[in-house]
Amino acid sequence: MFLHRRQVTIEWGDCDPAGIVFYPRYFAMFDASTAALFKAALGYDKFEMLKRFGIIGTPMVDTGAKFLLPSRFGDVITIESQVTEFRRSSFDVSHRVLRAGFVLAIEARETRVWAARRADDQERIAGVKIPPEIIAALSAS
Amino acid sequence: MFLHRRQVTIEWGDCDPAGIVFYPRYFAMFDASTAALFKAALGYDKFEMLKRFGIIGTPMVDTGAKFLLPSRFGDVITIESQVTEFRRSSFDVSHRVLRAGFVLAIEARETRVWAARRADDQERIAGVKIPPEIIAALSAS
Amino acid sequence: MFLHRRQVTIEWGDCDPAGIVFYPRYFAMFDASTAALFKAALGYDKFEMLKRFGIIGTPMVDTGAKFLLPSRFGDVITIESQVTEFRRSSFDVSHRVLRAGFVLAIEARETRVWAARRADDQERIAGVKIPPEIIAALSAS
Amino acid sequence: MFLHRRQVTIEWGDCDPAGIVFYPRYFAMFDASTAALFKAALGYDKFEMLKRFGIIGTPMVDTGAKFLLPSRFGDVITIESQVTEFRRSSFDVSHRVLRAGFVLAIEARETRVWAARRADDQERIAGVKIPPEIIAALSAS
Repeated sequence: MFLHRRQVTIEWGDCDPAGIVFYPRYFAMFDASTAALFKAALGYDKFEMLKRFGIIGTPMVDTGAKFLLPSRFGDVITIESQVTEFRRSSFDVSHRVLRAGFVLAIEARETRVWAARRADDQERIAGVKIPPEIIAALSAS
Repeated sequence: MFLHRRQVTIEWGDCDPAGIVFYPRYFAMFDASTAALFKAALGYDKFEMLKRFGIIGTPMVDTGAKFLLPSRFGDVITIESQVTEFRRSSFDVSHRVLRAGFVLAIEARETRVWAARRADDQERIAGVKIPPEIIAALSAS
Repeated sequence: MFLHRRQVTIEWGDCDPAGIVFYPRYFAMFDASTAALFKAALGYDKFEMLKRFGIIGTPMVDTGAKFLLPSRFGDVITIESQVTEFRRSSFDVSHRVLRAGFVLAIEARETRVWAARRADDQERIAGVKIPPEIIAALSAS
Repeated sequence: MFLHRRQVTIEWGDCDPAGIVFYPRYFAMFDASTAALFKAALGYDKFEMLKRFGIIGTPMVDTGAKFLLPSRFGDVITIESQVTEFRRSSFDVSHRVLRAGFVLAIEARETRVWAARRADDQERIAGVKIPPEIIAALSAS
């Protein structure tokens, strides 16, 4: 599968009174990493992707993370992300946070839905079929 | 186990361009719910708890959540939290988010460590034995 | 003008490595306070307000805050909010943060626009005339 | 004065249901920009700066921002930051957000204190004299 790596600087405002990252901030970083992964594979950003395919987003339905090592402000972490499986209207992404480029600090996984507003009720959201070109781009190695 | 319930209003700033809660915000709500659970069981807040027991916090080591129903700004959700297991220096908490007071919207679990600065290295953190009075207070029914 | 007061508990995740509130979090609290102020005056929430009046929100155009006293996790602050002036399509709100119910900790002000998508370009936003019933409700004493 | 420029990608999670940046997120970006400005001028990061000078941080005492143009997820903004004045124990920073590299989108200013824990009360914070080497590094052109 297509793999994307990016570096993130841990900011003062990402950290809590213990001086380490407040863990919900990691999930915001993972959400941005999934967006960066798709952008790298597709060549255009999430704003454009939503418009092209008429979806409302890729809402999270299941996620989990194991935190092995803490990070503090000033640290620069690497986040490695890739789709691990595509199904009809949902897909899985894995994220690995590395310290010093190779020490595993966090392992995370997520399941998202390729979602659109329902034709019969604009206030509700439903999964729709993931387009083949999305699967092809993210499956390239 | 001691069960704590609190209501949370979903704010505009909790929501993303799809109009639903940006899921990392739920983890911040769960972190606050764990603090509220302990405060309700102990009778004093986290600031006081950290001082009394000489710990630096209860950092997250493993967490996961299943998102069954989205919520949007203006919604009032109920979060039900309780410790599900205590071990020597770590413990598990479960959170259930309810819509309309009884419809299950999210199921989450977390494993935290009762952590202090290491005596031999003030910049490192290590798990320490959870005090019996903490276990007793959180285990009351 | 109609005055709204609410209490906010400062959470662990609101605070930075210095142990005090990371100041951007106050602006999120003020945004929620403005929403709460309008809800209290109107009797319905922001979601409903946006639908009734066909607006996209009340985006910030100018804001400022003076931080006189810090707060830390566990503190319960009071936020007092009121509209201080209405113009054609913009309005000013003031927020006062009180410690212990009466000690002034922060003074903030904001100018917002009553904004809708432009008819000629759905991707752009423009100020529109504030409805008289909004002004009446928020001007009540 | 020493000027620092950095680019920030607006993420999905930075934006609200109107599809534009939730303004408190800009203040978090400005806080990170001030840290980046100091790191660029000093050659070491905030974590190291706090240790070297025995301070607890540079808490905000007064800030303000004018929002001229909104940004949405996928946009890449430039933030230009510099100290505009140093006083004994406080200093001012200005931030300019540029779209497309040159269109002014936001003007912000902040006043911060160079702050340490008080010797007579470790739970209180007070301004202390800003070291000459800090002033020299940030004043270079």
